[in-house]
Amino acid sequence: MFGVNENYQKLPGSYLFSRIAGKVNAFLQANPDQKVIRLGIGDVTQPLAPAIIDALHRAVDEMARAETFRGYAPDLGYEFLRSAIVENDYRARGCDISVDEIFISDGAKSDSANIQELFADCSRIAVCDPVYPVYVDSNVMAGRTGTYDAASEVWSDVIYMPCTMENGFVPEFPRETPDIIYLCLPNNPTGTTITKEQLQGWVDYAIKSGAVIIYDAAYEAYISEENVAHSIYECEGAKTCAIELRSFSKNAGFTGVRLGCTVVPKELRCGDVSLNAMWARRHGTKFNGAPYIVQRAGEAVYSEEGKAQLKEQVAYYMRNAAVIRDGLKEAGYTVFGGVNAPYIWMKTPEKMSSWDFFDYLLEKANVVGTPGSGFGPCGEGYFRLTAFGSYENTQEALERIRKSGC
Amino acid sequence: MFGVNENYQKLPGSYLFSRIAGKVNAFLQANPDQKVIRLGIGDVTQPLAPAIIDALHRAVDEMARAETFRGYAPDLGYEFLRSAIVENDYRARGCDISVDEIFISDGAKSDSANIQELFADCSRIAVCDPVYPVYVDSNVMAGRTGTYDAASEVWSDVIYMPCTMENGFVPEFPRETPDIIYLCLPNNPTGTTITKEQLQGWVDYAIKSGAVIIYDAAYEAYISEENVAHSIYECEGAKTCAIELRSFSKNAGFTGVRLGCTVVPKELRCGDVSLNAMWARRHGTKFNGAPYIVQRAGEAVYSEEGKAQLKEQVAYYMRNAAVIRDGLKEAGYTVFGGVNAPYIWMKTPEKMSSWDFFDYLLEKANVVGTPGSGFGPCGEGYFRLTAFGSYENTQEALERIRKSGC
Repeated sequence: MFGVNENYQKLPGSYLFSRIAGKVNAFLQANPDQKVIRLGIGDVTQPLAPAIIDALHRAVDEMARAETFRGYAPDLGYEFLRSAIVENDYRARGCDISVDEIFISDGAKSDSANIQELFADCSRIAVCDPVYPVYVDSNVMAGRTGTYDAASEVWSDVIYMPCTMENGFVPEFPRETPDIIYLCLPNNPTGTTITKEQLQGWVDYAIKSGAVIIYDAAYEAYISEENVAHSIYECEGAKTCAIELRSFSKNAGFTGVRLGCTVVPKELRCGDVSLNAMWARRHGTKFNGAPYIVQRAGEAVYSEEGKAQLKEQVAYYMRNAAVIRDGLKEAGYTVFGGVNAPYIWMKTPEKMSSWDFFDYLLEKANVVGTPGSGFGPCGEGYFRLTAFGSYENTQEALERIRKSGC
Repeated sequence: MFGVNENYQKLPGSYLFSRIAGKVNAFLQANPDQKVIRLGIGDVTQPLAPAIIDALHRAVDEMARAETFRGYAPDLGYEFLRSAIVENDYRARGCDISVDEIFISDGAKSDSANIQELFADCSRIAVCDPVYPVYVDSNVMAGRTGTYDAASEVWSDVIYMPCTMENGFVPEFPRETPDIIYLCLPNNPTGTTITKEQLQGWVDYAIKSGAVIIYDAAYEAYISEENVAHSIYECEGAKTCAIELRSFSKNAGFTGVRLGCTVVPKELRCGDVSLNAMWARRHGTKFNGAPYIVQRAGEAVYSEEGKAQLKEQVAYYMRNAAVIRDGLKEAGYTVFGGVNAPYIWMKTPEKMSSWDFFDYLLEKANVVGTPGSGFGPCGEGYFRLTAFGSYENTQEALERIRKSGC
């Protein structure tokens, strides 16, 4: 009789956002007249920018004629898109990344889940706590995380790096030496980040300890402060120790369009083995390219029009972030993030648990957020709100929160 | 120091189609004036059907307005597409498959590479020989295939099921009991298939031996004979032992659009464990949905207009298949396939090796095919041509092959 991957059975409960969706659906069934405002999942709400829409229509028309029809894309992505990424995201910032170090994908979620395949089964991973659940869950499925303790909600073989008020949400170098360090900066879920100097410290630490950093730069477009790096390759030596994941979801509203890219520098090696070559082999074997029309949409993100329109879109969401941050502060809450990221991370009032506050906010204000504990044990007692709603809904949500007396 | 997944180093050479592309590029650099006709890789050439183009434009317009914009898709795919698949591909054929057994993906290649993750590390896989390389390579990467013998080109722990002229390309039940059986029918690369009665035999065998069948139905739209199953679920008991992979690449020309789906029946269990629940968990954790606009294009495949237009498109390619099959036969070749599949599988002349014939055909006729040996040891001495070119190119290619005196 065939056997299954037993690691799947170790996964506790369902994926965080599925659980939230379940609770919201139950509430709406019980209260069909209530208008719920969703500031939970990090999904965008603004339509695609006109430059992107135009590019999509043009690409669709190309697919309608035999002379311009495109079949299978190059495994690693079209050169027009990879070049645009290199020029705009790297060379413009002084990072020496080349086109053959860029791998186009269907999104950063897939890449962040798949990247662990390149590493040895026995690799020890280190993650911030709280953390985007995919980093841990993908390693659970691969059998790297040991046993799960339901009471403490920790995996025996994962190295957790707490990020809390007490340390200013700056992870500290772990006492045990990790093989793989996941860093998402600006951070999801806390909305906080670290300075370029602090990031250089992590690069130096990784080089010294022989670890590789998986650097998730999904929220890079929201950085507003000067001393924050937009790419880990702004740090010296990072090309020998870091893989960078980039997303088009948050800077260009591609959550339903699906496009991402991963940078695997050729200098990143384990002995004789090139991780760039390994990832190329994985792309060639287990993936068949992002859609042509979507890659053209990605190219439009870097057009002059596209850049101007998306700068406005990011500003729109960051105005929401200010509404949330300022509104919560005025209401007496302790609030973090929202300056270099579209997430606001708040302490729950009166030491309520994260899920209790979720239920309370849903019930009293009909506002959906994300319980901090869903992102890891150190997220307990915190709560995340996102700036991705409409301005009107965001204002109304804050009004309701104030009135509800939460 | 971090370590890598050592299994990647076991993979011999590069992915088949990358090697072919390299050879063709080298030939074109040396002979820039030659017009090469590509009947190698299974990539389509006809533009997307009008009904699909219309659906894409409409969906792009929806993404341009806040009221109709779509962010993250449901993990498992939009219900409108899953329902269309259930109605048209299953219920219309008397197969009792439900919407929550359908998982939308970015293509059958990804699914066929990822599906092995659900199974135990120690699973023994059985594959036809020759075979689509992804089934084996994805298991190599997962460490299931043992050691590779370069001389015989076989993996110590893979069960090979030869499909050759001698057995009419019908795989026989293996002597060793496999855990996972990969079947692609109609077959890639041989273009042949088996009858529904023979497929029922495989279902019965899988149930008896406790194996699971991964059934790749990517070429189903090309079936022309009555006694061939369009889905494995036409066979009794298949829901307890089979996963079916479906593609939109070949029936609707989506090679550059990227859409597929996988059917994991709820009745498929390993003890208490539901594989449907496992695959749902994988989708939720490691994938973020196919693009909304692409899912709308998939829906259009099942519209009345779409069905009529795609029937013509399939007929167009099958006319090419007849040109190749008949042309080669007239020229004295031994030829298989091309009746229920867009592939023609031929014996190389004068006992030439597959790669020698590849070079010979490229050099003498400027026609690109695929060496049979690239699909497995039993493919040696065979050669694959595809019907996915234009009619004019296909005719010219056959003319050149005849004239070249191959």
